[in-house]
Amino acid sequence: MSLQTSSEIDIIKAATSKIDQVDFEKLTFGSVFTDHMLVCDFRNGAWEKPVIKPYEPFVLDPSAKVFHYGQAIFEGMKAYKTEDNSVWLFRPEENHLRMNKSAVRMCMPEVPESIFIDGLKELIRLDEAWVKNGKGNTLYIRPFMIAIGSGVIAQPSTQYRFCIILSPAKAYYSGDVKVLIADYYSRAANGGIGAAKAAGNYSGQFYPTQLAHNAGFQQIIWTDDATHTKLEECGTMNVFFRINDTLYTAPTSDRILDGITRKSLIDLAKREGINVDVRPVLVDELVEAAKNGSLKEIFGAGTAAVVNPIVGFQYKDEYFELPKLEKSYATDLKEKLTNIQYKLAEDTFGWTVKI
Amino acid sequence: MSLQTSSEIDIIKAATSKIDQVDFEKLTFGSVFTDHMLVCDFRNGAWEKPVIKPYEPFVLDPSAKVFHYGQAIFEGMKAYKTEDNSVWLFRPEENHLRMNKSAVRMCMPEVPESIFIDGLKELIRLDEAWVKNGKGNTLYIRPFMIAIGSGVIAQPSTQYRFCIILSPAKAYYSGDVKVLIADYYSRAANGGIGAAKAAGNYSGQFYPTQLAHNAGFQQIIWTDDATHTKLEECGTMNVFFRINDTLYTAPTSDRILDGITRKSLIDLAKREGINVDVRPVLVDELVEAAKNGSLKEIFGAGTAAVVNPIVGFQYKDEYFELPKLEKSYATDLKEKLTNIQYKLAEDTFGWTVKI
Ligand SMILES: Cc1ncc(COP(=O)(O)O)c(C=O)c1O
Ligand SMILES: Cc1ncc(COP(=O)(O)O)c(C=O)c1O
Repeated sequence: MSLQTSSEIDIIKAATSKIDQVDFEKLTFGSVFTDHMLVCDFRNGAWEKPVIKPYEPFVLDPSAKVFHYGQAIFEGMKAYKTEDNSVWLFRPEENHLRMNKSAVRMCMPEVPESIFIDGLKELIRLDEAWVKNGKGNTLYIRPFMIAIGSGVIAQPSTQYRFCIILSPAKAYYSGDVKVLIADYYSRAANGGIGAAKAAGNYSGQFYPTQLAHNAGFQQIIWTDDATHTKLEECGTMNVFFRINDTLYTAPTSDRILDGITRKSLIDLAKREGINVDVRPVLVDELVEAAKNGSLKEIFGAGTAAVVNPIVGFQYKDEYFELPKLEKSYATDLKEKLTNIQYKLAEDTFGWTVKI
Repeated sequence: MSLQTSSEIDIIKAATSKIDQVDFEKLTFGSVFTDHMLVCDFRNGAWEKPVIKPYEPFVLDPSAKVFHYGQAIFEGMKAYKTEDNSVWLFRPEENHLRMNKSAVRMCMPEVPESIFIDGLKELIRLDEAWVKNGKGNTLYIRPFMIAIGSGVIAQPSTQYRFCIILSPAKAYYSGDVKVLIADYYSRAANGGIGAAKAAGNYSGQFYPTQLAHNAGFQQIIWTDDATHTKLEECGTMNVFFRINDTLYTAPTSDRILDGITRKSLIDLAKREGINVDVRPVLVDELVEAAKNGSLKEIFGAGTAAVVNPIVGFQYKDEYFELPKLEKSYATDLKEKLTNIQYKLAEDTFGWTVKI
């Protein structure tokens, strides 16, 4: 679809701020939003002028395609405030690129940089007071696009809404995470939409994840749907396995999301001299390694939790406990990555972008 | 989830009707809606009282889970008006049952009969003037449910909206339909959500279908995602193949929607003495049958088009034309099924339900 890039953004400021009503020490992830949002509609083959305005409800026809056909994509990213009160983004161009890849797969228009990146920066400048400094405090950023055209016929919409909302967040801690390895349910098909951050991928996981919860597990390690032999993702995160001193993670594919945390951790680990092997990892290998003691760690990797260490996994009827390590790769890599994000360590990769 | 069934429905009538603005001879499928809709919200673990009210937009928080995680399901059914101006539904209990199966798979609350069936009947009574009589005129019915709870965290919502909207429609005619057999893209995973009428399944098809359009094909015949050797669905329809005088269609599975048209056609065909074989149908078989002349027909089956004959198919680089038949099963079965729906033939199956 053709893109009309606009170099300007309309800004309508909120009359009052809600910030005083928020207890920043008691935040539930993704539930509190800042004073403003960015909205930009796509109509007649072009993006309209983006507008930053007070956070407010959407008014949509009941036949809007997002409600019926799930034509919707999103991104997840964070802003960090340093000791000197400057605000930084982490590899935002990667989220922009991935949003547009998702858009192509879901038959939606790509979002130009002037709206995604410049719009985001402008929005954060306006709501900067909502980003608290100190490691562990972040502003979670949710760019998303929905099909707002009406009509209950299963065809791509001609009208879309791109929107960015912001939610202050504390460091994500989920307690001990035990995982179940999927041997029946799956999250993505070959030739499907698993590699896109498409809305439908996520609700499809709810039911199997609830079954896992009921059985005492916090997350599922998804396997390939055809054979259930390859370890692919962990909940809504990419997943790493440490066997002896090598880190393994699956290559991305059309079933696996190309996570930005994943690729950053791979680069960081390599820089630390850790051996990283990107190749399909088999359930059998994992079970074997758990049995012979060479399996040291499993962890999820994603923007929300950064690194999410796993304490044990169940496959079919057998539960395997992971060792408790003094020096774990998970802890070390998380520390190194967040230090870069909070500008507490030199960013030799050029990943951080000042707002 | 626990269900609170309500035996009553609030009705708020529209002050004026839009019906005079509608040209019933020129209807685009799914684009015009009647004066009223039924809305029923689920909150605090129970369904609230359903209300029938003037068709109007939804007002939803930008963080509503339907926008981010695609937690949304729908149904598609039709009402028919006979010569004596009575209005009939076709196997509505099947749609209700399937909606609730979809709900379970998508971690959503089941909708009680008092809301789905009784609510639908009440709604249609109110908008009865929108159902025109005469074969070919129908009222397309779209029950759907969306997650309206807010919060950008990938977890099931605690709040839902069930809604029914109605759209008058003419007989669906799509011209000559040529199909492409999928050898890369797919619509459903093993252990995925393909058997649910979940929103995300449909937008996932848009891009491959657009590629097919660009290559001159109206639809895709989906194959199993693991091997692309089994013929599963055609666009958003089930699919039948006639080889010599036997009708073949794939068994339903967790990748295939259990279509009500499909199962009705199977019963009808059997009653007509046609040999029906429900078993996996292979791409190779189809190509072979096309080559040796035993392939007589392919047709899609679904509520919107009822029966959708296909004139030819392409597999990889080869295009196969189907014969033009004097007496086709597709035409005959469509005639027989619509005669039952319009009460022009005796309904020996007990499929029709008077409103
Ligand atoms: C399915 C899935 N896998 C992996 C990730 C991790 O990606 P990222 O590191 O870019 O947040 C995400 C998003 O958070 C995801 O939704
Ligand atoms: C994927 C899919 N297959 C098949 C069908 C046909 O089902 P039915 O005959 O119940 O309309 C539908 C719905 O129309 C569908 O969405």
